[in-house]
Amino acid sequence: MKPVVGVLGGMGPAATVLFLDRLVRFSTASIDQDHLKSVVMMNCDIPDRSSAIIRNDDGPLIAMIEGLTNLEKVGADFIAIPCNTAMYWFQQLSDLTTVPILNIIAETSQVLRDAGIDAVHLWGTNGTYQSGIYERHLNIFDIKIIGHSTQTQSVLDDVIASVKRGQHKGFKDQLAEPINHLSHHDSDIPVVLACTEFSLAFQNESMGIPYVDSSDCLAVRCLELAKVEHEAPEWLAQL
Amino acid sequence: MKPVVGVLGGMGPAATVLFLDRLVRFSTASIDQDHLKSVVMMNCDIPDRSSAIIRNDDGPLIAMIEGLTNLEKVGADFIAIPCNTAMYWFQQLSDLTTVPILNIIAETSQVLRDAGIDAVHLWGTNGTYQSGIYERHLNIFDIKIIGHSTQTQSVLDDVIASVKRGQHKGFKDQLAEPINHLSHHDSDIPVVLACTEFSLAFQNESMGIPYVDSSDCLAVRCLELAKVEHEAPEWLAQL
Repeated sequence: MKPVVGVLGGMGPAATVLFLDRLVRFSTASIDQDHLKSVVMMNCDIPDRSSAIIRNDDGPLIAMIEGLTNLEKVGADFIAIPCNTAMYWFQQLSDLTTVPILNIIAETSQVLRDAGIDAVHLWGTNGTYQSGIYERHLNIFDIKIIGHSTQTQSVLDDVIASVKRGQHKGFKDQLAEPINHLSHHDSDIPVVLACTEFSLAFQNESMGIPYVDSSDCLAVRCLELAKVEHEAPEWLAQL
Repeated sequence: MKPVVGVLGGMGPAATVLFLDRLVRFSTASIDQDHLKSVVMMNCDIPDRSSAIIRNDDGPLIAMIEGLTNLEKVGADFIAIPCNTAMYWFQQLSDLTTVPILNIIAETSQVLRDAGIDAVHLWGTNGTYQSGIYERHLNIFDIKIIGHSTQTQSVLDDVIASVKRGQHKGFKDQLAEPINHLSHHDSDIPVVLACTEFSLAFQNESMGIPYVDSSDCLAVRCLELAKVEHEAPEWLAQL
């Protein structure tokens, strides 16, 4: 029997749906029965991760434990959490279960390493940026993060909030200033979409910059582990 | 606490992802925490429903029971099954659990009745068409099904298989003959998308015919029951 993937999702809901869409879309299966089998907890009620990190509050961890327990109950063989900011509590979550949990940041870092990349821009929540959860993984591979201004972070946080509010397009305009800045400075250094909401923002518009989508990195790893035949995301060829 | 929706999915996987997308998209929530909380069993390994009905085989029912049991275990308050053909086993599934199961066919029939419709075309799997599972519900409201040729059914089955194979566009061409036939005969009688794969086929192309999307009818009902604020699907205004 193929392994069953448990997805602890809802952070946010649209980003989880896009992650599930990638699990289906990257698969080269031609009938239902060859696709990945998964169990998904769409726990939208988990408190906001980024603001919790900033005020040193473990509310999201406590809420995530419910989802973790349910994934165990229904026999998930491994667990994917399509949320970068949630990785702040990765160690505590892993200590609570015998089911292996994938770390979206570790998977993304591995893809960056395999692509021979030595520096990146990091577009994620303020909590992800401030907490240093990416540095910890990227340092292992000597990959440097190019810092950005608080003004840029504020634009990034706005984009994330827009996706959560249900916005579907217009992100290229919203991101005009950070994109313009990159084009004039470090145009060949890729942006890590280090928040799963960015996958949605980048979905329908070509931003004209090289990027690595963390949600896709996690999806590909799930398909590998579940032994489901699949293809690589398109952005990989642009690096 | 808001009710938790259990989704018995994977029939097929892309159609379930689209159903989940609609649950998010129809919702007018502006933050994660106001969205619908759900648990999804993406049980892609459930055998093909349509061919099982034709050869009088209960394999899909047995496979669906596993998903049902898991949804009970994790506390689903009610269950949605985004697959029309699976409703062939609706009574047996309902008898096996105390958790209420929504019937996508009953929900779609109710929408048709509320819209004052008295005749429809039925585009679904051969199993759905042959088994009469829609007639049973539509008869209650005196809604007539306009029959179609085996040639048309063969085109419909091809479209469903194409979606399952991962096709994303080109459905208007594939459906040219049935659409052309409708335009010349019963242009004001809506087509019921009575297979959740058709929601995908109709997603990105305007087919120029009035239709009622069964997957959307089920999604709207879930949002109502879970008390999540939402808007109506766009096709409803075209009836």
